[in-house]
Amino acid sequence: MHLFTTIWEGGSRLGIQAISGSVTSPRGFRAAGVSCGIKDRKRDLALICSKVPATAAAVYTANQFKAAPLWLTQRHLADGKAQAIVCNSGYANACTGERGREDALRMAQLIAQELNIAVEMVVVASTGVIGRYLPMRRIEKGIPELASLLGDNDNGAAEAILTTDTITKKVAVEVELSDATVRIGGIAKGSGMICPNMATMLAFLTTDARIGSGLLQRLLRDSVDKSFNMVTIDGDTSTNDMVVILANGLSGGVEINEGANDRESFAAALDLVTGELAKMIAKDGEGATKLVTISIEGARSFPEAKQVAFAIANSNLVKTALFGQDPNWGRIAAAVGTSGVEVKEEKLSISIGDLMVCKNGVGADFSMREARRLLSAPEVEITINLNQGRQRAQVYTCDLSYDYVKINAKYTT
Amino acid sequence: MHLFTTIWEGGSRLGIQAISGSVTSPRGFRAAGVSCGIKDRKRDLALICSKVPATAAAVYTANQFKAAPLWLTQRHLADGKAQAIVCNSGYANACTGERGREDALRMAQLIAQELNIAVEMVVVASTGVIGRYLPMRRIEKGIPELASLLGDNDNGAAEAILTTDTITKKVAVEVELSDATVRIGGIAKGSGMICPNMATMLAFLTTDARIGSGLLQRLLRDSVDKSFNMVTIDGDTSTNDMVVILANGLSGGVEINEGANDRESFAAALDLVTGELAKMIAKDGEGATKLVTISIEGARSFPEAKQVAFAIANSNLVKTALFGQDPNWGRIAAAVGTSGVEVKEEKLSISIGDLMVCKNGVGADFSMREARRLLSAPEVEITINLNQGRQRAQVYTCDLSYDYVKINAKYTT
Repeated sequence: MHLFTTIWEGGSRLGIQAISGSVTSPRGFRAAGVSCGIKDRKRDLALICSKVPATAAAVYTANQFKAAPLWLTQRHLADGKAQAIVCNSGYANACTGERGREDALRMAQLIAQELNIAVEMVVVASTGVIGRYLPMRRIEKGIPELASLLGDNDNGAAEAILTTDTITKKVAVEVELSDATVRIGGIAKGSGMICPNMATMLAFLTTDARIGSGLLQRLLRDSVDKSFNMVTIDGDTSTNDMVVILANGLSGGVEINEGANDRESFAAALDLVTGELAKMIAKDGEGATKLVTISIEGARSFPEAKQVAFAIANSNLVKTALFGQDPNWGRIAAAVGTSGVEVKEEKLSISIGDLMVCKNGVGADFSMREARRLLSAPEVEITINLNQGRQRAQVYTCDLSYDYVKINAKYTT
Repeated sequence: MHLFTTIWEGGSRLGIQAISGSVTSPRGFRAAGVSCGIKDRKRDLALICSKVPATAAAVYTANQFKAAPLWLTQRHLADGKAQAIVCNSGYANACTGERGREDALRMAQLIAQELNIAVEMVVVASTGVIGRYLPMRRIEKGIPELASLLGDNDNGAAEAILTTDTITKKVAVEVELSDATVRIGGIAKGSGMICPNMATMLAFLTTDARIGSGLLQRLLRDSVDKSFNMVTIDGDTSTNDMVVILANGLSGGVEINEGANDRESFAAALDLVTGELAKMIAKDGEGATKLVTISIEGARSFPEAKQVAFAIANSNLVKTALFGQDPNWGRIAAAVGTSGVEVKEEKLSISIGDLMVCKNGVGADFSMREARRLLSAPEVEITINLNQGRQRAQVYTCDLSYDYVKINAKYTT
């Protein structure tokens, strides 16, 4: 929650404040998580549902091999309506062909039956190992218990969607609109396979705002582009990931419309939620020992700034140096030089926090000791000024540690 | 040398055979390597020179921040002539501005003086940490000793160009041309920062063939595209790397010309040398425990095949699974799906060696034990058939181990 401070500026001006909880904080939402035996002794099945039908929007992975649950969810959300989200961890139900699609549909049917809603009102998500079939018997046995545990406590659901994550990721905010107080909450899972173009992770958001699905979809897409799409752990892009939001309208008040003042406040509140979840994901990257913010300044355009930022953030050589607290700025310069963006070497400057380590393309006269001190902090900011324009971009990532290798060398076993 | 078998097919048909040695195997070349104190107790300064002026060709890094020695070498090779190559390891002389360029020129001047040749006949190379000035006093002191040690033994030079490499990389072949027996030899360094578009490493090649610099340049470019440009260790691209070849004509015989039969034989011999050096680099990737060949088959075009191959070879998730001997083929499928090449999931097949683990986009019925056995070998072949065309590409890489992180977390310190 302490990360809030960094993006909080301006939030209070718009009447937004952090509140406790996550997906069950907005009115009319309940959640639960159980252990049904997909994973050993860990929660692996989550359910979130709204008391009433909600408008819904979603953004999906950029990977062209979309997992079966995404295939199903895209169909169920075609009408912009949903009421429940079910998610299992452990197996991704990706690269599972026709049987995988049947399994995803079966999950939706079982939930629909328990909640007495139409099957098309159910969003299905999965995360875990690719290429294995879901243990459907266990899931079938787990679903009645899952439904029976639905309540105000969001912890079970927040836990059950995790894979190699080490902490649950939860955020909730409240925003004053013209005639209603609206809440937005969210949970997410991240860790490995985190890279731009959405892809990358699961986030389930709920809100009691009254809003149409068209506007909700536009706001979600914009918000994802500013948050989850600016995070990279290892440059890999998963087959499974999506961000879904349900808006059930139980806050009352008039509907939020394009052009209304409330639109700006609601969008800002949504950005706070997605921004916080995105940073939590970067900070909890597999094996990460620090959250690293790569800021590009002085670019000719935002796409160029973003491209340079990702070239640095995805460089294994940069990421291992960050793990080693090694102020080896030459690796950052090399990543800039190979980013594909035309840059003048003699204009480049690089800073760690406020300490300039490279100026006009050559090493600055800096204290190695101070550089190491800055790099040993849990949050590190690297700023690269290209000095050839006025555009900027900021990307969140983490370091590459022994533990990343350890976690990923043995993930399926 | 055992790697030779794999690309040897067809070589003997063209009258090519492996011989011992490397850069001093062709007639009229000498070499030496000394420790001048740039690195601790290790050889760090190499020299290769021809008895007579040679035609020369080179391919340089794709990184736009080219190091000072590359800047100088490009100028010195403008006339297609050179006689000596000097190379230091330890510092890259990259991101060093005007002073870096002066230092590179000074290295060339000192060598020219020792060898009594024109300064423009000297090729300069550096490899190591970026952003630090060269310790010129040590280099100045070392050069006379270096020149005095010039001889037939290539080991000193092969050692002195290494950084985090664990083995020297040397190859030499002999090829029968219509009226002469020509030799080609080469040494290389690789390890980290190895990725496509040349970049990536140093290779110094010598030959006693008679060949013009225009044809030599075209053959070198083609050969590099098929070898060094098909290797990736970590997706990073260095500021410093180049492949240089000197051809001194001392084999006698008529000049190799475009269109002549000898051209094909010479090109094949050159490809053997660069191909072997490239594989040695992949096998000796930082922290690598195995050489991994990624073969794409059934692609619509070679560029698409190559793009998919690199997407897999650069995936940290795939590389850590390979380190863990984990037959987690879903990560390979996910990398294919996000490669940017349009692929039909239901047509995809993946094999480890001869063992098919994924067929028609879903898991095949395979023995986990056999898959693990295949993955535990020092050389692993992964074949991905896209089943949508007839083109293919093969990329060499290695796994991502604890030692990669260890080596790179502490490289400058």
